[in-house]
Amino acid sequence: MRAAVLVGHGGPDQLVVREVADPVLGPGDVCVEVTAAAVNNTDIWTREGAYGPNPEHPTGWLGLPIECPRIQGGDAAGLVRAVGDGVDATLVGRRVLVDPAEYDAPGPDATPVRILGSERDGGFAERLVVPVGQVHDVTDSPLDDGELAALPIAAGTAMGMLDRAHVGSGDTVVVTGASGGVGMAAVQLAAALGGRVIAVSSAGKGPVLRDAGAADVVDRAAPDLHRRVADLAPGGVDVVVDVVGGDGFGEWVGVLRRHGRIVVAGAIAGPHVTIDLRALYLEQRRIIGSTMHTRAQFERLVDLARRGSVRPVVAARLPLEEIHEALRLLRAGDAIGKIVLLPPAGV
Amino acid sequence: MRAAVLVGHGGPDQLVVREVADPVLGPGDVCVEVTAAAVNNTDIWTREGAYGPNPEHPTGWLGLPIECPRIQGGDAAGLVRAVGDGVDATLVGRRVLVDPAEYDAPGPDATPVRILGSERDGGFAERLVVPVGQVHDVTDSPLDDGELAALPIAAGTAMGMLDRAHVGSGDTVVVTGASGGVGMAAVQLAAALGGRVIAVSSAGKGPVLRDAGAADVVDRAAPDLHRRVADLAPGGVDVVVDVVGGDGFGEWVGVLRRHGRIVVAGAIAGPHVTIDLRALYLEQRRIIGSTMHTRAQFERLVDLARRGSVRPVVAARLPLEEIHEALRLLRAGDAIGKIVLLPPAGV
Repeated sequence: MRAAVLVGHGGPDQLVVREVADPVLGPGDVCVEVTAAAVNNTDIWTREGAYGPNPEHPTGWLGLPIECPRIQGGDAAGLVRAVGDGVDATLVGRRVLVDPAEYDAPGPDATPVRILGSERDGGFAERLVVPVGQVHDVTDSPLDDGELAALPIAAGTAMGMLDRAHVGSGDTVVVTGASGGVGMAAVQLAAALGGRVIAVSSAGKGPVLRDAGAADVVDRAAPDLHRRVADLAPGGVDVVVDVVGGDGFGEWVGVLRRHGRIVVAGAIAGPHVTIDLRALYLEQRRIIGSTMHTRAQFERLVDLARRGSVRPVVAARLPLEEIHEALRLLRAGDAIGKIVLLPPAGV
Repeated sequence: MRAAVLVGHGGPDQLVVREVADPVLGPGDVCVEVTAAAVNNTDIWTREGAYGPNPEHPTGWLGLPIECPRIQGGDAAGLVRAVGDGVDATLVGRRVLVDPAEYDAPGPDATPVRILGSERDGGFAERLVVPVGQVHDVTDSPLDDGELAALPIAAGTAMGMLDRAHVGSGDTVVVTGASGGVGMAAVQLAAALGGRVIAVSSAGKGPVLRDAGAADVVDRAAPDLHRRVADLAPGGVDVVVDVVGGDGFGEWVGVLRRHGRIVVAGAIAGPHVTIDLRALYLEQRRIIGSTMHTRAQFERLVDLARRGSVRPVVAARLPLEEIHEALRLLRAGDAIGKIVLLPPAGV
C-alpha cells in the first residue's frame, strides 16, 4: 500500500511517500481503510524530533527517538475492512473514527502512552491496524469523513483541556490562539458545552470564529488585550484555554474570577512565563497542565461528533501524495481550519 | 474589658492595648471568654495594610482599608460564657475553638469573606462574640488551650492546602518553609493524613520537624535543593506545599510526578515567579492557589484536634499586655512554633 513514512528525524526529506507492506492484523485488532487523515503540528515536531530540550538529540513527545521507518499520522477516519480473532464481525463495513492513543491502564481516566504516527504506525496510509478499543463507530454522524478525521488530535486535546478545567454550561471561556487547530476546536466544543466563548485571534478571523460559536472575538495584536477581554466579562472569566504561553500568559491570571482556571496544553509563543502568585492564591485560582485526552474525554468528543454538535472547519483536502504541500500550508498558518489528506480510497 | 485594638494602618504604635466596651451578644451569637489567642503574620500585615499593590493606600486582605478601631486576632480558644437567643444553652461552659471565618454562603465549600480581627473584632481580648456556627466544641480534646489557639489560621490554611491538593495516605509531600506557622502545621497534618513528608527548612530545625512528623528534613540553603529533594522521591513528588514562592518556585514543577500538584498560599520570598509551561502541561501537573479554609476543611481540622492527631508546637506564651513583644518574636523568626497570648483569664 502507499504510505507517508518517516525514515529519520530531520527536515521534509525525512518523510517519504512510498510503497510499504500491508499492516498485519492480529487478535483483537481491526483493519481500517483510511478515507481521510488530518495533519497536525505534532507530525512536524515528531519528524524534527523537536520535543526534547536538546536540538542535538532529537526525540518524540515521550523524550525518546522515534523508531523508523514509521508511518506518520495521528488523525484518521475510515471504514472497517477486516477484524482479527475475538472481534465482533459486524464491525466490518462500519465507518469509524480512530482514537490515536493507547493508554497506560484500563479505565476511563488512564493516560495515553503510545500514539499513532509516533510509537506505532499511523493514518497517512491506505490502511491502518489498531486494537478494536481504539475505533469508535460514527457511521450515523452527519459529519463527512474529512470532518471526522479533523477531530482526534486537535479536538481531543481541546476536550481534555475543557474537561480538566470543568467547563460547563454558562461558563465564560477565553480561548487564545483561537484560529489554530486546538483553539478552533476549543471554541466549538466550549460553545457546544454551553459556554460563552471569547476568542482571541489575529485580526480578520472574526467571521469564521463567530461561525464556530464565539460570542466575542478579540484582536490579539491591539493594545490592552487583557483589559479588553476583562471588559467583556465583568464578573470575571471562568476558564482561559491557552496554547500560546509567552509574555502575555501571566496577565490571564488576573482576568479570572475567584476559583477560575487557566488550562494550558502548549506554548507556541514561548514556554517560560512569569506569574504573580498573589493573583493566584488570594483568589484561589489554578493553572492546569493538560496533554491530549483520556478515554472518557475522547468518548465525550465522539458523542458530540455523532450528534453533529461539533463540526470542524476543513480548510483544504489534498491527496496523500501531496503531504509535503499539506504540511507547508499548515506551517504557513494562513489556512483557517484543518488540512486533510485523502488516501486513494478517499479521493 | 482589656483588648489589643488597631487604631489605624501603620507601625506598632497603631496597635494599643486598652479598655474597651464589652462586645454585645445578639441572637444566634455566643460569647467566648478567651483563654488563649495566637499571633500570626496576618496580624502584622493587616496592621500595616500590606495586602494591596500600592503601599500608599494600605488595605486589608480584601483590598479595602480596615475599619478602626478594630480588635485584632484571628486565632482564639476559650470557654462559652453566654449564648444569645436561639442558641442551645448547654453550650455554656464548653471549651471551644473559634473558626475565624464567616462565609459567603451556606454549605461546606463556601468561601471566607469576613475574618476575626479584620472585618470583625477578634480574639486579642478578654471576651469575643461570634455567631454560634463559628464555635466548635473541643472540651474533650487532649490539647491545652494554647495548643488549640495555635490552630485556626495556620493549620486552617495548611488543611485548606492539603485538601485542595487532594493529599492522601501514601502521598509524598514536600513542605517548603516548614518551620513557619503554616509550614509546621502542613508537616503535622500531612503526616496525620498518612503522607510521607519531606520538610524544607533552614539548618538546625531537623529535630523539631522530625518530631512534627517529617520523614526527611532538607536544608534549604545548601546547593542543589531541588535535586536533593528529587533524590528522596525517586517516583516523583505528589504534592509540594509552598508558602515561599520566589526564585526557587519554578523548579518545584519538575520535581512533581505526572499529575502532581503544587499548592501555594503565600510567597514570602517574592510573588513573581517564572515557570516552564512545558514541564507543567507535558506531565499534566497543576498549580493550585489556596487561601484559608472552607467549613468542611475547618471541621476536618477540628476533628484531628479532638482526637489529638495534630498537636501544634507552642514556642512561647505571653500575657495579652505583652502583644508587642509577641509580634516582635514572630517577626524575628527564630522561634519554632506558635506564639500564644494569654488574656487575663488564661494567665
